[in-house]
Amino acid sequence: MSESTYKYDADAIQARKPERPIHPLLLSRTSPREMTGQEVSDDELRVMFEAARWAPSHYNLQPWRFVYAKRNTTHWQPFMDLLWPLNQQWAQTAGALVIVLSNKWWLYKGEKQLIPTHSYDTGAAWISMALEGTARGLVVHGMGGFDYDKAYQLLGVIKDTHNIDAMIAIGKRPAKEDRKQQEAISQRNPIDKFVFEGVFVNNDKI
Amino acid sequence: MSESTYKYDADAIQARKPERPIHPLLLSRTSPREMTGQEVSDDELRVMFEAARWAPSHYNLQPWRFVYAKRNTTHWQPFMDLLWPLNQQWAQTAGALVIVLSNKWWLYKGEKQLIPTHSYDTGAAWISMALEGTARGLVVHGMGGFDYDKAYQLLGVIKDTHNIDAMIAIGKRPAKEDRKQQEAISQRNPIDKFVFEGVFVNNDKI
Repeated sequence: MSESTYKYDADAIQARKPERPIHPLLLSRTSPREMTGQEVSDDELRVMFEAARWAPSHYNLQPWRFVYAKRNTTHWQPFMDLLWPLNQQWAQTAGALVIVLSNKWWLYKGEKQLIPTHSYDTGAAWISMALEGTARGLVVHGMGGFDYDKAYQLLGVIKDTHNIDAMIAIGKRPAKEDRKQQEAISQRNPIDKFVFEGVFVNNDKI
Repeated sequence: MSESTYKYDADAIQARKPERPIHPLLLSRTSPREMTGQEVSDDELRVMFEAARWAPSHYNLQPWRFVYAKRNTTHWQPFMDLLWPLNQQWAQTAGALVIVLSNKWWLYKGEKQLIPTHSYDTGAAWISMALEGTARGLVVHGMGGFDYDKAYQLLGVIKDTHNIDAMIAIGKRPAKEDRKQQEAISQRNPIDKFVFEGVFVNNDKI
């Protein structure tokens, strides 16, 4: 790893207006859709899983599980078939698709107990992957738009034991001058919409 | 923000043996317990919430909600009372306690729908806070060891609408030479325990 291993997307940093400066690794992470259609190497995948590995979790239980399919393998099409058509359109140029799941149970003093943070901890592992991969020039795009039930069937797991949390498309990002489209860089709610001192104000009534 | 804003814990990096080098912000994040008992400023809290703000989420719904209590305020003791005694012992030297919750529902084309990734996305926001705060020299320690039911009561929310995911203790970390104890730096499972190509192997049977 050299100083030049990581490049923070200057366009994302420019387009976003944080109220206070934060680490560029966090601010520059975006979820673009345009990929080259090239394969992603085992080494590129492993370094992202390595990043996921060091996420924090309840009792260090590490409930995250990742199942991946690389393009040009027999696993690819069944994974692609899970996605909603709108996601298939762009994700077909990915180099790998990943199903992210979490293990729901552990043994605590000999008793089977629910891991209350299984999906929450797995979300911490997922963004670690995204941060590592994005700053290495890859697209690492999370997706909730797929057929969850079909994914349980494909993996042969049941909701009682595991939770399928999300999918991820990973691919090579074209160099800026080779991109066919300029993708919007997403913004966020102001902090006061989601942070409260002492008393929770429920603004989520629908 | 200057170059010296961030310091990556050299001891953590030294003690951990990643299979491949990853970003030091990710590798150096740990969950120490020793804090100075000092207050944490609004500015320090806000910069962490700012980091959380830029996490990715399903449809950019940003389901994370944070309720915090600073020490020396009336909110502090009710938050402290939620913790298991073992956590109270060390967390009493925190400068702030945070309850993290996620909003479960949204309107999609006029219909109320479950956000499948509410806790998962909130976990991504939580680790963003932890990464930002830890690299600024704070302790940012996640906790699942508290009375969840009592937390719902305290915040006046119900499980139907929100999920209480976890709590966080935030405080000033003593300088290395001032620490009373040397804390163990946690390790992780090897990648092959949680990553699978194409086919999920369920090793989680208990």
